Amino acid sequence: MQGPPLPPAHTWRRLLELALEEDVGPGDLTTRAVVEPDRQANAFIEARAALVSCGIDVAGAVLHQVDPATRFERRAAEGATASPGDALALVSGPMRALLVAERTMLNFLQRLCGVATHTRRFVDAVAGTGAHIVDTRKTLPGWRVLDKYAAAVGGAINHRMGLFDGILVKDNHVALAGGVAPAVKAALAAAPAGVRVQVEVESVEDAVVACDVGADFLLLDNCEADKLREIVACVGNRACLEASGGITLENVRAIAETGVSRISIGALTHSAPAVDISMEIGPGSPGVAR
Amino acid sequence: MQGPPLPPAHTWRRLLELALEEDVGPGDLTTRAVVEPDRQANAFIEARAALVSCGIDVAGAVLHQVDPATRFERRAAEGATASPGDALALVSGPMRALLVAERTMLNFLQRLCGVATHTRRFVDAVAGTGAHIVDTRKTLPGWRVLDKYAAAVGGAINHRMGLFDGILVKDNHVALAGGVAPAVKAALAAAPAGVRVQVEVESVEDAVVACDVGADFLLLDNCEADKLREIVACVGNRACLEASGGITLENVRAIAETGVSRISIGALTHSAPAVDISMEIGPGSPGVAR
Amino acid sequence: MQGPPLPPAHTWRRLLELALEEDVGPGDLTTRAVVEPDRQANAFIEARAALVSCGIDVAGAVLHQVDPATRFERRAAEGATASPGDALALVSGPMRALLVAERTMLNFLQRLCGVATHTRRFVDAVAGTGAHIVDTRKTLPGWRVLDKYAAAVGGAINHRMGLFDGILVKDNHVALAGGVAPAVKAALAAAPAGVRVQVEVESVEDAVVACDVGADFLLLDNCEADKLREIVACVGNRACLEASGGITLENVRAIAETGVSRISIGALTHSAPAVDISMEIGPGSPGVAR
Amino acid sequence: MQGPPLPPAHTWRRLLELALEEDVGPGDLTTRAVVEPDRQANAFIEARAALVSCGIDVAGAVLHQVDPATRFERRAAEGATASPGDALALVSGPMRALLVAERTMLNFLQRLCGVATHTRRFVDAVAGTGAHIVDTRKTLPGWRVLDKYAAAVGGAINHRMGLFDGILVKDNHVALAGGVAPAVKAALAAAPAGVRVQVEVESVEDAVVACDVGADFLLLDNCEADKLREIVACVGNRACLEASGGITLENVRAIAETGVSRISIGALTHSAPAVDISMEIGPGSPGVAR
Amino acid sequence: MQGPPLPPAHTWRRLLELALEEDVGPGDLTTRAVVEPDRQANAFIEARAALVSCGIDVAGAVLHQVDPATRFERRAAEGATASPGDALALVSGPMRALLVAERTMLNFLQRLCGVATHTRRFVDAVAGTGAHIVDTRKTLPGWRVLDKYAAAVGGAINHRMGLFDGILVKDNHVALAGGVAPAVKAALAAAPAGVRVQVEVESVEDAVVACDVGADFLLLDNCEADKLREIVACVGNRACLEASGGITLENVRAIAETGVSRISIGALTHSAPAVDISMEIGPGSPGVAR
Amino acid sequence: MQGPPLPPAHTWRRLLELALEEDVGPGDLTTRAVVEPDRQANAFIEARAALVSCGIDVAGAVLHQVDPATRFERRAAEGATASPGDALALVSGPMRALLVAERTMLNFLQRLCGVATHTRRFVDAVAGTGAHIVDTRKTLPGWRVLDKYAAAVGGAINHRMGLFDGILVKDNHVALAGGVAPAVKAALAAAPAGVRVQVEVESVEDAVVACDVGADFLLLDNCEADKLREIVACVGNRACLEASGGITLENVRAIAETGVSRISIGALTHSAPAVDISMEIGPGSPGVAR
Repeated sequence: MQGPPLPPAHTWRRLLELALEEDVGPGDLTTRAVVEPDRQANAFIEARAALVSCGIDVAGAVLHQVDPATRFERRAAEGATASPGDALALVSGPMRALLVAERTMLNFLQRLCGVATHTRRFVDAVAGTGAHIVDTRKTLPGWRVLDKYAAAVGGAINHRMGLFDGILVKDNHVALAGGVAPAVKAALAAAPAGVRVQVEVESVEDAVVACDVGADFLLLDNCEADKLREIVACVGNRACLEASGGITLENVRAIAETGVSRISIGALTHSAPAVDISMEIGPGSPGVAR
Repeated sequence: MQGPPLPPAHTWRRLLELALEEDVGPGDLTTRAVVEPDRQANAFIEARAALVSCGIDVAGAVLHQVDPATRFERRAAEGATASPGDALALVSGPMRALLVAERTMLNFLQRLCGVATHTRRFVDAVAGTGAHIVDTRKTLPGWRVLDKYAAAVGGAINHRMGLFDGILVKDNHVALAGGVAPAVKAALAAAPAGVRVQVEVESVEDAVVACDVGADFLLLDNCEADKLREIVACVGNRACLEASGGITLENVRAIAETGVSRISIGALTHSAPAVDISMEIGPGSPGVAR
Repeated sequence: MQGPPLPPAHTWRRLLELALEEDVGPGDLTTRAVVEPDRQANAFIEARAALVSCGIDVAGAVLHQVDPATRFERRAAEGATASPGDALALVSGPMRALLVAERTMLNFLQRLCGVATHTRRFVDAVAGTGAHIVDTRKTLPGWRVLDKYAAAVGGAINHRMGLFDGILVKDNHVALAGGVAPAVKAALAAAPAGVRVQVEVESVEDAVVACDVGADFLLLDNCEADKLREIVACVGNRACLEASGGITLENVRAIAETGVSRISIGALTHSAPAVDISMEIGPGSPGVAR
Repeated sequence: MQGPPLPPAHTWRRLLELALEEDVGPGDLTTRAVVEPDRQANAFIEARAALVSCGIDVAGAVLHQVDPATRFERRAAEGATASPGDALALVSGPMRALLVAERTMLNFLQRLCGVATHTRRFVDAVAGTGAHIVDTRKTLPGWRVLDKYAAAVGGAINHRMGLFDGILVKDNHVALAGGVAPAVKAALAAAPAGVRVQVEVESVEDAVVACDVGADFLLLDNCEADKLREIVACVGNRACLEASGGITLENVRAIAETGVSRISIGALTHSAPAVDISMEIGPGSPGVAR
Repeated sequence: MQGPPLPPAHTWRRLLELALEEDVGPGDLTTRAVVEPDRQANAFIEARAALVSCGIDVAGAVLHQVDPATRFERRAAEGATASPGDALALVSGPMRALLVAERTMLNFLQRLCGVATHTRRFVDAVAGTGAHIVDTRKTLPGWRVLDKYAAAVGGAINHRMGLFDGILVKDNHVALAGGVAPAVKAALAAAPAGVRVQVEVESVEDAVVACDVGADFLLLDNCEADKLREIVACVGNRACLEASGGITLENVRAIAETGVSRISIGALTHSAPAVDISMEIGPGSPGVAR
Repeated sequence: MQGPPLPPAHTWRRLLELALEEDVGPGDLTTRAVVEPDRQANAFIEARAALVSCGIDVAGAVLHQVDPATRFERRAAEGATASPGDALALVSGPMRALLVAERTMLNFLQRLCGVATHTRRFVDAVAGTGAHIVDTRKTLPGWRVLDKYAAAVGGAINHRMGLFDGILVKDNHVALAGGVAPAVKAALAAAPAGVRVQVEVESVEDAVVACDVGADFLLLDNCEADKLREIVACVGNRACLEASGGITLENVRAIAETGVSRISIGALTHSAPAVDISMEIGPGSPGVAR
């Protein structure tokens, strides 16, 4: 089963430009001082820790942007597991270009592989339960499409991309509308064709009310496992149930075993630690990511 | 002693625009469906965990960008410590605008306070040793100036902003130049007025050579504490010494006690977890960050 | 019942800038030659034909962009019907600014009111049948959010905004997937949370198959009224039915009376004629749009 | 005699980018769900109605922007007449790219061919009279250079591009300047080298006055055919005469036969209906536009 | 008689942004180090040499862009002559903002006043002859509208803004077209309404031919004064005559006295030296520009 | 010894785009009228005066931007001296593209060669003294990196790029800080790693104080040669000494002979006259720059 496609370049082109402008600015003083302009080199981009490969073509776009006269060869599939020493890519061309692009390539990869790797841990933790791990809008500003892509590479299902492509009636909306029933009715009436309505509920009663007025997609925020089980029992398959709030690697399986279909987790993107990746210049023969 | 000034808005304006475009897109479907356009509201932006306040005016700029008819009042100083429940800001205006801006404001704050908070832990860990914590170029692409600002708010000293405003002769450069001495000489000769030259060394011998040819700023990468002490002893105050590589909260004080002046740490920015911050609508009386 | 909110300014800001740059360029030669810089004026923006008001605040943004020292007062509600001579807005400020902004303001208004007016004709034609008029992606390049806003002001329901926020499995997709059933299954499996799947069918058989595998939203393209009636009879309320293709003001009511829920029409946006609107300088007392 | 060149890409590049961003956004959900990434295809872009070909290379630029690995072959000359079923272009490459680009390519073509086709009707209607059809500034915001290009392809002559490259003293300017004579004198005095002055007049007297003070280019707005004939008779060849206002396909020939040189018509661009064009995937052998 | 209006801000906004980004970058290190953030100040922007005032509001826009909390008061009219010590503007607000904006404000003013001042020298040199000084397209890249504005403030007449708003048939075009007569005929036939045709000629014969086929605007490039006189005598007032090429302050009056109407000079913009202007902080009472 | 590398294209891409947009706008009317679209041509870009070659690849980028189907061959090395008639580049391709790009290519070259040539005069004037010529921030707005590049090609050393990459404590800062000593101390304490501190002094006493508190880089502004000599004698090699203010080609050697290390000169960039360069179409055999 193939993974998600890299989002179209126009969605991350401006971030890539920002990244190079902020790092390179008017030029690399060190490289200019000590590297001859016609010097050529090869280098491997290598994992220094166990990781899930992600975003390799973004790194390639960084290198190409610095100097179109470089070459970039992918050495690991998106989503493949890499061990320390495994190559993710082979880069070659003018040494100056490689050194200028190095940090920005690695910064992108360390983030994207970091999110994919962190997500995979949660996905593995619920394996076999039938529950899906889902991302959130708690992504880094400027990184929405890349962060969500990395979560998908890690095995998560994407929730709505933003405020514009899904309706999620949260507790504040419910309060403003005067209760779950009027809120859901208003949302269903206003939903554009093609957009589903999800509503946040915090009790069995509200879950039943929501279904009764036509909601078929519920968010169960900050509910204990017992309450989740109770809602699953009451609602049955009248609605898709998504748990969220306070999910950790320690408790995610217990949540999954309550019978909910989806578990959404902000930490996939807001707190994924970077994974260690480096660029090694010169000959060598690294391993291959699997 | 006052903290660092927020970087000029032109340096983070494009990131802010990206962030709103990616989240809001053609409009907030939920708010449109269930919130009346003339409804007004107040809300507090509150810490939900202990944190170091940072980037509050960036959140204000987000709100103002969504709707200039809103008000944003800062309730905590940059760099102040906040406890769960403490207010960082008071926001008011059209309810729709508050809900549209909420996630992007929080995403910025959770990241910036996250970096400042994580940095403060390292700064506190070396208190009294005389060593300074320093950031690196391992920032998130697109976030260089904001990440470095947050590190400074946390108490770190900023290293160079990018490739353009400092010279750092690393191991690859030394190899290309044929040794530490020729590399340093070339770098000193080419350095623009106002730019200092730092050189990476990995042995006592190279440290001495570097000083002998005029370097007064050394990077000691991946050295054990014993070797650091040895270099400190040999070089004395002929150069500013900066340690880096493999620094953790556990070992940072031991490194600081070797006598180095600076300790640079990529994790300040590449692996800072988000801190929990929320927007609470309606009346209430949160605490005050100190 | 209130109408749709104007899309956030960031979604049409670039179009507005393009429009002023292309018309004003390095400056208005005529105004410069014959109008004194300190001359002030008032003017009414008036309907010259019966129309549905739409986009008045976009015109205000044009004027403000040309000169922040101008004033713009709306005189008609969005969606209100105006007769020839009715005022849509009152503008005042430096005469030069009014003349510079005039054509661009009018060009926006003639288009947006044109789409709203054309849409209203279709909406009125199906009044009482229970069917809704729906827009399409056949908007003018660069105008997606404004065109769809104008269609909504005219009384249409918006279909998906673009390729990213709805799934519509069309005939080409069905052929590629090997039939309606596998296509719908693949789409349902891949749909992000919050996104509904619509599938195009051309026969009663395919409509039933689509419902059987879980589709609850069908597009019936280029079907005669008889066939539509047959599909409505077979599918009942298992799915939302949308007719499209070859719809005109002459046949739209007959289509609506087949019992379909929605009728989508590209001509709302791709072929709406401009409505006549002018700017009248000086005193006067125009009527009021209702 | 060759037609007008396509305007330089920098003049429509931003519109093209807007168009793709608004339609594709973070990616095409449907294509991702049901089309395999390595599937290749051919398709013809075909006329579905009689039309004047226009803007084919703009469609090619859209496709190339979506995926540089596609091919686009023009099959009809700009300005050629196409019948239903005639090919305008042959496109090939990854099926996903073709489907992603389809709607935006067609939206550009339906508009540009629509303007060219509508213009050609007016041009044909005055054939043999010696009068030229001229466009106006009543173009769609953001579309000025493309709309004017399409009008030229249809056979019209372009009037000024904007406020910056021609002087047109209209009724409001005349009133401000205190009459036709002072207005024309001021305009002639201030006209940059290379810019002609056109002045709007509404009577035989004003036409003569304008010529007497040096104007050689008059706009006759909203004049009946009789008055136009009278002005033609009085002014003779002292000035170029352009009629405008209320021109339709029904009355344009009568206007042309009054002896005016030019007839300017806003409807060429503000009310041109789209022409039907589609993309047909797979084998086939369409006709050829002439 | 009033001077030219400042070009609309959208024509120089991008240049202003570039200028601030390149100078300020991530922030002013010196000001941050030694100036307290709440310190306020006044300063005069003063002429340090005799000059023609120009572009003062551009400097104001720079200051406002750096910090909207500053104030900027113009103290000299555009086009007024200033002596050393005369104030051009009074600025006030946060000291940090003044220091950050200082160099960019001065760099704009030194250039714009420099062009206006240099132009005024040529204008004064031909005073009384009836000839006008005209600018060219030899402006600094990125500075077209501002350079031409400054030339106009200095008293020059603007030639075409660019390739798009005027036709100038130069020697290369004449050669390509096969002579002056066919070149002029082609140009007149293709000229958009409102655009005049100018043709470069180098002999009396060509000047006469050009007039005979309808040109009424000639460019006489690199002609000696004697030849200019001869052409003036032959052509009389059949055409407007413009001399160019090799014009200096020494020979410009002699050229003007040949009877040509216009003299175009690239050096107005390509070689205008900066004039000295400084910002003086603190109390003081400078003179007033006249 | 090789010269400085051309700054990365992202640093001057926006200026190049501005330059083409402002000159070409919606298209070249003249070329369209008199040059056939399929006409091909060769041309040499030639020096018309003695000059130092600079920025040739920027001109190549201009041509390529106008039409990627053109060819551009460099014929002179950056920094080489050219005599009148020497070729700088050979361009070929569609005649229309060459004519469209001509003026913008030449405007860039005349400026960049102008700065390099003017700088070289100063560099030659101090040959053998050991002093270096240094540029300043008095560059043309929008041109910082290109102006500084041209100064470097001319033989100057670059001072800081902007406010962000060097600390220069000027007289205003000293006054605010309460004297040279506290100002220097504050600056040294706040300087980021890698940034040197330079301080402006105007007397022998202040120079000594500055050195005593740790400054090793002094700016001596507007000092007579005698005072410079005195400071050199007192400070010896405790600091790098840079003279500035009122430097001309006439007095620069006398300043250099005082023993200062550096002489910074704003006129390198703010008042460099353009050098004459032209594009000659057709066959020919120009000389070669040395």
